Amino acid sequence: MSRRADLLRLPMSAPDDVSALAAAVAEGRLDPSAVVAVFAKTEGNGCVNDFTRALGVHALRAFFAPLLPPGGADRIAMVMSGGTEGGLSPHWLVFSAAPGEGTGPALAIGQARTPVLPPEHLGRREQVDLVAAGVRAAMTEAALCPENVHYVQVKCPLLTSERILDARARGAEPLTADTLKSMGLSRGASALGAALALGEVPDEALGAAPAGRDLSLYSRRCGASAGVELLDHEIVVMGMSPDWTGPLVIDHAVMADGIDVDPVAECLERLGFAGGRVREADRGRLAAVLAKAEASSDGLIRGHRHTMLTDSDISATRHARGFVAGALGGLTGLTDLFVSGGAEHQGPDGGGPVAVIARAVTARRV
Amino acid sequence: MSRRADLLRLPMSAPDDVSALAAAVAEGRLDPSAVVAVFAKTEGNGCVNDFTRALGVHALRAFFAPLLPPGGADRIAMVMSGGTEGGLSPHWLVFSAAPGEGTGPALAIGQARTPVLPPEHLGRREQVDLVAAGVRAAMTEAALCPENVHYVQVKCPLLTSERILDARARGAEPLTADTLKSMGLSRGASALGAALALGEVPDEALGAAPAGRDLSLYSRRCGASAGVELLDHEIVVMGMSPDWTGPLVIDHAVMADGIDVDPVAECLERLGFAGGRVREADRGRLAAVLAKAEASSDGLIRGHRHTMLTDSDISATRHARGFVAGALGGLTGLTDLFVSGGAEHQGPDGGGPVAVIARAVTARRV
Amino acid sequence: MSRRADLLRLPMSAPDDVSALAAAVAEGRLDPSAVVAVFAKTEGNGCVNDFTRALGVHALRAFFAPLLPPGGADRIAMVMSGGTEGGLSPHWLVFSAAPGEGTGPALAIGQARTPVLPPEHLGRREQVDLVAAGVRAAMTEAALCPENVHYVQVKCPLLTSERILDARARGAEPLTADTLKSMGLSRGASALGAALALGEVPDEALGAAPAGRDLSLYSRRCGASAGVELLDHEIVVMGMSPDWTGPLVIDHAVMADGIDVDPVAECLERLGFAGGRVREADRGRLAAVLAKAEASSDGLIRGHRHTMLTDSDISATRHARGFVAGALGGLTGLTDLFVSGGAEHQGPDGGGPVAVIARAVTARRV
Amino acid sequence: MSRRADLLRLPMSAPDDVSALAAAVAEGRLDPSAVVAVFAKTEGNGCVNDFTRALGVHALRAFFAPLLPPGGADRIAMVMSGGTEGGLSPHWLVFSAAPGEGTGPALAIGQARTPVLPPEHLGRREQVDLVAAGVRAAMTEAALCPENVHYVQVKCPLLTSERILDARARGAEPLTADTLKSMGLSRGASALGAALALGEVPDEALGAAPAGRDLSLYSRRCGASAGVELLDHEIVVMGMSPDWTGPLVIDHAVMADGIDVDPVAECLERLGFAGGRVREADRGRLAAVLAKAEASSDGLIRGHRHTMLTDSDISATRHARGFVAGALGGLTGLTDLFVSGGAEHQGPDGGGPVAVIARAVTARRV
Repeated sequence: MSRRADLLRLPMSAPDDVSALAAAVAEGRLDPSAVVAVFAKTEGNGCVNDFTRALGVHALRAFFAPLLPPGGADRIAMVMSGGTEGGLSPHWLVFSAAPGEGTGPALAIGQARTPVLPPEHLGRREQVDLVAAGVRAAMTEAALCPENVHYVQVKCPLLTSERILDARARGAEPLTADTLKSMGLSRGASALGAALALGEVPDEALGAAPAGRDLSLYSRRCGASAGVELLDHEIVVMGMSPDWTGPLVIDHAVMADGIDVDPVAECLERLGFAGGRVREADRGRLAAVLAKAEASSDGLIRGHRHTMLTDSDISATRHARGFVAGALGGLTGLTDLFVSGGAEHQGPDGGGPVAVIARAVTARRV
Repeated sequence: MSRRADLLRLPMSAPDDVSALAAAVAEGRLDPSAVVAVFAKTEGNGCVNDFTRALGVHALRAFFAPLLPPGGADRIAMVMSGGTEGGLSPHWLVFSAAPGEGTGPALAIGQARTPVLPPEHLGRREQVDLVAAGVRAAMTEAALCPENVHYVQVKCPLLTSERILDARARGAEPLTADTLKSMGLSRGASALGAALALGEVPDEALGAAPAGRDLSLYSRRCGASAGVELLDHEIVVMGMSPDWTGPLVIDHAVMADGIDVDPVAECLERLGFAGGRVREADRGRLAAVLAKAEASSDGLIRGHRHTMLTDSDISATRHARGFVAGALGGLTGLTDLFVSGGAEHQGPDGGGPVAVIARAVTARRV
Repeated sequence: MSRRADLLRLPMSAPDDVSALAAAVAEGRLDPSAVVAVFAKTEGNGCVNDFTRALGVHALRAFFAPLLPPGGADRIAMVMSGGTEGGLSPHWLVFSAAPGEGTGPALAIGQARTPVLPPEHLGRREQVDLVAAGVRAAMTEAALCPENVHYVQVKCPLLTSERILDARARGAEPLTADTLKSMGLSRGASALGAALALGEVPDEALGAAPAGRDLSLYSRRCGASAGVELLDHEIVVMGMSPDWTGPLVIDHAVMADGIDVDPVAECLERLGFAGGRVREADRGRLAAVLAKAEASSDGLIRGHRHTMLTDSDISATRHARGFVAGALGGLTGLTDLFVSGGAEHQGPDGGGPVAVIARAVTARRV
Repeated sequence: MSRRADLLRLPMSAPDDVSALAAAVAEGRLDPSAVVAVFAKTEGNGCVNDFTRALGVHALRAFFAPLLPPGGADRIAMVMSGGTEGGLSPHWLVFSAAPGEGTGPALAIGQARTPVLPPEHLGRREQVDLVAAGVRAAMTEAALCPENVHYVQVKCPLLTSERILDARARGAEPLTADTLKSMGLSRGASALGAALALGEVPDEALGAAPAGRDLSLYSRRCGASAGVELLDHEIVVMGMSPDWTGPLVIDHAVMADGIDVDPVAECLERLGFAGGRVREADRGRLAAVLAKAEASSDGLIRGHRHTMLTDSDISATRHARGFVAGALGGLTGLTDLFVSGGAEHQGPDGGGPVAVIARAVTARRV
């Protein structure tokens, strides 16, 4: 018997607003016991002191606890990504997996959680290996081989003043004492871990502290997001599997910079959106867009200077999210896009991977 | 004999970097005595305390003073627009007008400056009328009739704590004591002034303090930008005139919201950019894009909530600029776009006018 | 039999960190059933989109729920105040009341909750009256007469884009559509409500929409704080009552501007802190400092210009909190001060009330 | 014949407002040819993209140019320090030196300028040595020996994306690619340079890249401020010299943390301010307060957590300036204090040096 993945994209009026999930359960559109992962774009700053992510997790746990057997909520991957700059709309993405009938291939989904990351391992080879092992476990769960994976979402930890002191108290020195910078290092090492597991980067190319070193090493299919609300990693792997069924399909693209929409247009075309644009009539078929955004480290886009890295009032990740949201919004007509900031080792420098999940064009018997 | 308009789009490495202008003069690509207006996107916050605009003006005056007869620099309209959020690239737009030969129609440009605006008139009918008179004067200068105008750029003043106290010392009460809010009221009244002069809004529709009142009243062809560095209004009018010649043409579109790129695509199509997209090979033909961006006042884009108005860390205008820059960047492949924030009464609520200046497809004898 | 008030000042490592409360309960220093109010300074921006306050409330409810009978947590006033700018330290203030023996006077505490405030009443006379009634109810509960009250803490609601739409859907127009501004109007109307109940402002001085109108009308003993996490008002009244006993005493002062520490020094002197300074040895006697901070509306402090109102990157309330925190920190040697921003109608324009709670100098038999 | 130092503290209504200087010249209170240094607190963010400093320099140069012989303006040290958080008031400090008669000791002032700093030397031993040489030159000019120096003000450069690319183009790698971080490294190396010249730190304690390494190495008498508007260093040394005369005296203190006002109070006491507080009647005697502010790197003030380093919306230097301004404002009653952010190697970690310049209590024949 095959499995079937489903996905609901639901609005939130605040990071703790789960009323749309409640309505979906009440109306029979969502089976709580089938939920494997909930992603959310929450309206914080997406940086170190973004507590909207923690608030989202609090609300989700409180919501699911009475609907599931004891410990059930702990098995749901909760990937909160802060930052809804520009016109981005805060929203939930609720992924379910259940026994299904019919033939594939279709969207497959698997998840895993790593052990807690000691603060001094952040950005170093140890974090890369920890994440690689987690990605492999999630692929196994989803019965996906590396080449069929289209997206790996990693939620990773960051350093706080407290965690740094904690490491030092044990005689260990973290890679950085800059809490904001630690987010980038953690995302970078996580992406390299995914790249290792997916065979995108060879083992020997990675040194002792690979994050942030050689930006030509990257994953084309990983989005990593750092948050203060966890100490380990939550990993969700998505791909196309013959063992899965249902209406959903997934594909991916890689943007070379923040306005490089052509590869995404081609991806949309492959998914049946004519002209590589999502017109009004087709919009219902678009289930989710997951993308990474970042400021190029050389301060340039196509040879022209940008100011994201020298703006001391707004973090570069905030600039990048709102900007890429505009580019993808123009293409898709949606604003509830899962655009996450900081794409270190996720796509080329200044660009980033994009995954599109859609309902297949041809009706498929399920 | 006709006139001919030219336009250079030049990079800046800082708000006071005029080296690209100096190079253009040195290489004979720019005649200082022909310059009628300089626009710039500078890398400030675009809000009340954005002194990058003043710095740009300082640098321009110091640059032009030795190149022009006494008072010559004062006749150049200097429209600094702060805010290069997202991937926007700080740049200069240098408009020249000179005697030309050949036939039109082609881009025509005219400018005017209003008397100083008393702080207590800001946002009120007095400001509307002041700007309307200025727009009419600029049209006269350019020999443009209202229907041939494609864009009116207004640089307008704002209130500071000092100016408010000054008005009160004279027994007059400004429309608002909120300095940030005064920027929106000033832009709104300026746009209504342009709308009045262009015949887009009837006189009787405007009350005593029309700015911010009825957002269904708006100009489809005006972009207004407020700044602390002036007390009057600088007005530049652009359109297509049979009395002008040269390689440049202008057209405009109106976006209904921040991701409504279709009207702009159609405008590009009309200007000869196939498919309504500016491909690599065509990019040299695109001379300038001027656009307005804002957050819709109902907090929604196509029914989905945005968070621009409830973010107390980043001004809504900053969010909107970076977002619309992404949408237009995806379409045009450029990041040195003149996207200005705050589109009150400039296009429909949440949207805004866009003007595109391009080199004409067919070579024209000049 | 008299009552006895107690107060714990406890650290938090994040807005949802209640571990210090848990330790206090475990060690017998805190009786959950005696808790009447919990205040907290949380590390958000203290403005519209500050969700750290909601997160704090989530955590407190989850903490108290299993320790109290059903509904017990609802009876605790939870007053989260966002914003720990400068060196302010996030912390909890846990107020308890229990039967006590001995003689007074001592710190007395009472609380009340108002009905839900319709968005269109915010800033208007209706809100003033609602809060006045709540303050009277809280005084009654604490057996305090107006002249013995030293501080009234009001947590009040604010407007969001949603709440504004909701009012309009009912044909009602809120006083403002600016969400950040609504915080100030709500605080102002709340303070006027307290002033009315305390007899500081005569009924006839208030018009239909008094908030923000005449800043010479104010309470000398009220601090109001607005938050997105509630729709009604939570009111806590503190004063000196002969019917209460215990080690704690309270006094208050009014700062005329952000650096006017002399009245606070005199208040400290009255409480037995020699020289009006809190020296190292005495610091343990200082139980809590509650203060309001704001930018003066004329843009001046003692004739010198400040830039808090014209800074479009940082809200004036954020500036003011960090600044007043420095002034009071220099005086008291503490950084876990409950400094709250936005003092509209709370003390004179640009200044604000300060309450100091201390352990009495002379040991008192309890 | 001795020299005499004078100092004017003048308001500015914007970074380019030199009207108070013009008035001083017009009224004979300021002799342009005697000016040796102008300091200013300007209302920018004080970080990388703070162009208010450049604007201030533009305005000063334009002001002095017609008043001085050719090249005269270049000999004036212009030390713009951005950031007037909290209630800080933007202002100018205009230092003059002229032949004087009478006896000392009195405030002495000397200045120097270093060669341009290659970007790759920033934060490294080369920068330390460059600044040390400059401090020695300035001391020589002022006829000051190290032990009589009370304050060294250094204005130092920072890295921008462009300058980093420039170094790399030459095959050199800067110490950091983080532009905001480069400000701290530059300030730190500058302070160590001053410490070396003043004999506060032994040569052998410094390694190849000492900035940011061992925070126990610091100067007690140096304030460094980084800015985008220069590529070299401007150094001003102040002290008490028997060879100088006039009404002004200088003393200094070191704050151990942001609220450690006691050493400053003692300094004020030594300068004749009774009780270590500057009361209304004495305020005219206080000529200038120069102080450094920073967030302690362990995230603690007296054991309590602060959030300056984990706030991703407001830079830690902005928090620190507003906070220390409050502490010093409470003590002195002034808001036009020269509080500068980022005190790396300037006083102990989290604290900073403070210099006070005052008119001497006893009238002195001059």
